[in-house]
Amino acid sequence: MERIEHRVSFDGWQDVFQHESKVLGCMMRFGVYLPPQVAYKRLPVLYWLSGLTCTEQNFITKAAVQRYAAEHGLIIVAPDTSPRGEEVADNEAYDLGQGAGFYVDATKIPWSNHYRMYTYVVEELPALIEENFSASQRRGISGHSMGGHGALVIALRNPGRYQSVSAFSPIVAPTQVPWGQKALAAYLGENQDTWKEYDAVELIRTAQERLPLLVDQGLSDEFLDNQLRPELLRSICREVGHPLTLNLRLGYDHSYYFISTYINEHIVHHAAALNR
Amino acid sequence: MERIEHRVSFDGWQDVFQHESKVLGCMMRFGVYLPPQVAYKRLPVLYWLSGLTCTEQNFITKAAVQRYAAEHGLIIVAPDTSPRGEEVADNEAYDLGQGAGFYVDATKIPWSNHYRMYTYVVEELPALIEENFSASQRRGISGHSMGGHGALVIALRNPGRYQSVSAFSPIVAPTQVPWGQKALAAYLGENQDTWKEYDAVELIRTAQERLPLLVDQGLSDEFLDNQLRPELLRSICREVGHPLTLNLRLGYDHSYYFISTYINEHIVHHAAALNR
Repeated sequence: MERIEHRVSFDGWQDVFQHESKVLGCMMRFGVYLPPQVAYKRLPVLYWLSGLTCTEQNFITKAAVQRYAAEHGLIIVAPDTSPRGEEVADNEAYDLGQGAGFYVDATKIPWSNHYRMYTYVVEELPALIEENFSASQRRGISGHSMGGHGALVIALRNPGRYQSVSAFSPIVAPTQVPWGQKALAAYLGENQDTWKEYDAVELIRTAQERLPLLVDQGLSDEFLDNQLRPELLRSICREVGHPLTLNLRLGYDHSYYFISTYINEHIVHHAAALNR
Repeated sequence: MERIEHRVSFDGWQDVFQHESKVLGCMMRFGVYLPPQVAYKRLPVLYWLSGLTCTEQNFITKAAVQRYAAEHGLIIVAPDTSPRGEEVADNEAYDLGQGAGFYVDATKIPWSNHYRMYTYVVEELPALIEENFSASQRRGISGHSMGGHGALVIALRNPGRYQSVSAFSPIVAPTQVPWGQKALAAYLGENQDTWKEYDAVELIRTAQERLPLLVDQGLSDEFLDNQLRPELLRSICREVGHPLTLNLRLGYDHSYYFISTYINEHIVHHAAALNR
C-alpha cells in the first residue's frame, strides 16, 4: 500500500492510497479522510461509493465532507468505482466497464476476470482499512447514484456488518431501469434471477435486518423518472415495514452541488449510529 | 450574457455564465453563487480570483463556499483567470498566458491585445454583475495565490471601491519572486517601475486607505519560501501601520483542501464588513 496524496484538511488528513487488489487483480486507489481524533482513538469508518464515471477523486474534492467528518470523528473511505488498467476489460460507453463497476461480482467473460467490486468493497477494502488505520469495526456505508445502489445492496446483503446506511439519488431497482439492465446483463448474463441479488427493492422484500434507510433525492434530477425511481423504494418499504426516510429536495439535480448541500445530514445520521 | 450552468446549492443557485468581454476581446466565463436571499433583497458581492491554471470551475466546485455564502447572504463571483480562445496569445508554460493572467493590464505585444484582467475585474465584471443580478454596490474581494495577489492589488489600488479584502496564500511581492518577475516582464516589459503598480507590498507603502487585510497561509505550502513570502507582507504592514491579520496554519499546503478548511472564516470577515 502506497500513499500518493497527503493533505491536511480540517486538522485531519485527506490522503489517497494505491494498493494491489487481490480481489480485482489490479492496482486500485482509494481516498481516506482521517479526522484529528485518530491521534488518540479507533474510529468508525464510513464507506462512500461513487457513481458512474467517477474515480476516488470526485467525492473527496467536491462533497465538502471533511468538516463534518472531523466534527463527528468519522474516517471516510472512498474507493474508485471499478477495476482499472490496460489489462482490464472496458467499453466505450460511460455506463459499462471502467468507471461503471456497479458494485457487483461479474460472472461473465470478459468482465469476470476483474470486475468483483462487491467483494472488494465488502471484504478486501475494510480488511485493509481496519489493519492499517486507527479504525474500529463499526461501519457505515453510503453513496451516490450507482454508488447509492451499491451502498443499499451491500448493507442489505450483510446484516450486522454495517451499523448505518444512506444514499443520495440511488438506483433503487436496477433490474427495472436501463442503466441497471444494461450493466447486469453484461456482468451477470441474461438469467434475471441472478440480478435480484443486486437490486435493493428486491432485497428489502426478504431482508433479515431492518436497518433504517436514509435517502436524499433531488426533484430536478435528470435521471429521476427513468433510472432512479425512488417511488419503488418507498412502496416496498411501506409494504414490508422497512424503516425509510426519503427526503425529496425541490430544485436539486444529480450533481455534487446536491450532495454537498445535504452531506452534513447524512454524516449526522451515520455518526448517531456509529458513535454509539 | 448566456447562462451555461444552473444548479441549486444550499437553496440558492450556483450558476455559470459566459459573455463577450469588451475589455478582453473574447468570450469569458464566470461562476456566480446567488444565495436564497436574492429573492427579496440586493446583496453584497464577494469577488474571488483564482490561481494559476484555474478556470471559473475550481473555486465553485472545490472550495465549499456555498454554505457560508447562503448563511451570510453574499453573492460570490468567480471569474476565469485569463482571456481564452484560439486567437488569444498563449505560452506552453503553466505560469504564463492562458490560465495565468496575473490580473494585470498587459502593455506588451502579443499580450496587450487581450490580457487586461485588471480592468476586467475592477470595471467590466462588476458593472455586468450589478446590472444583471440582485447585487448592491458593496464589494469584497479575495483570492488564492496569483488570485490572492490580484485581490490585494485591486483592493489597494481602488480605495473606497471594496469594503473588504482577504487572500489565501497570496503572492504578496511579485516583483521579488520568480512567478511574478516572469509574468510582469512578459506582460509589462523590462521597466520595473511599471511592475510596482501590481505589487501589494509596494502598494501598501503608499496606500491612501488602510483597509484591514486578512491573509491565511499554510506552513506546508510548497511555494511558501520562494514565491509567496508572507514575511514581506508582515514587515511592510508593521512598518507603515497597515492592519493585517496573518494566520499561519500548521500542516496546510497550497491546495483547495486548505481553502475549504478556512473559507468560512474569510466569509465571516467579508460579511462583517459588507453587511454593515
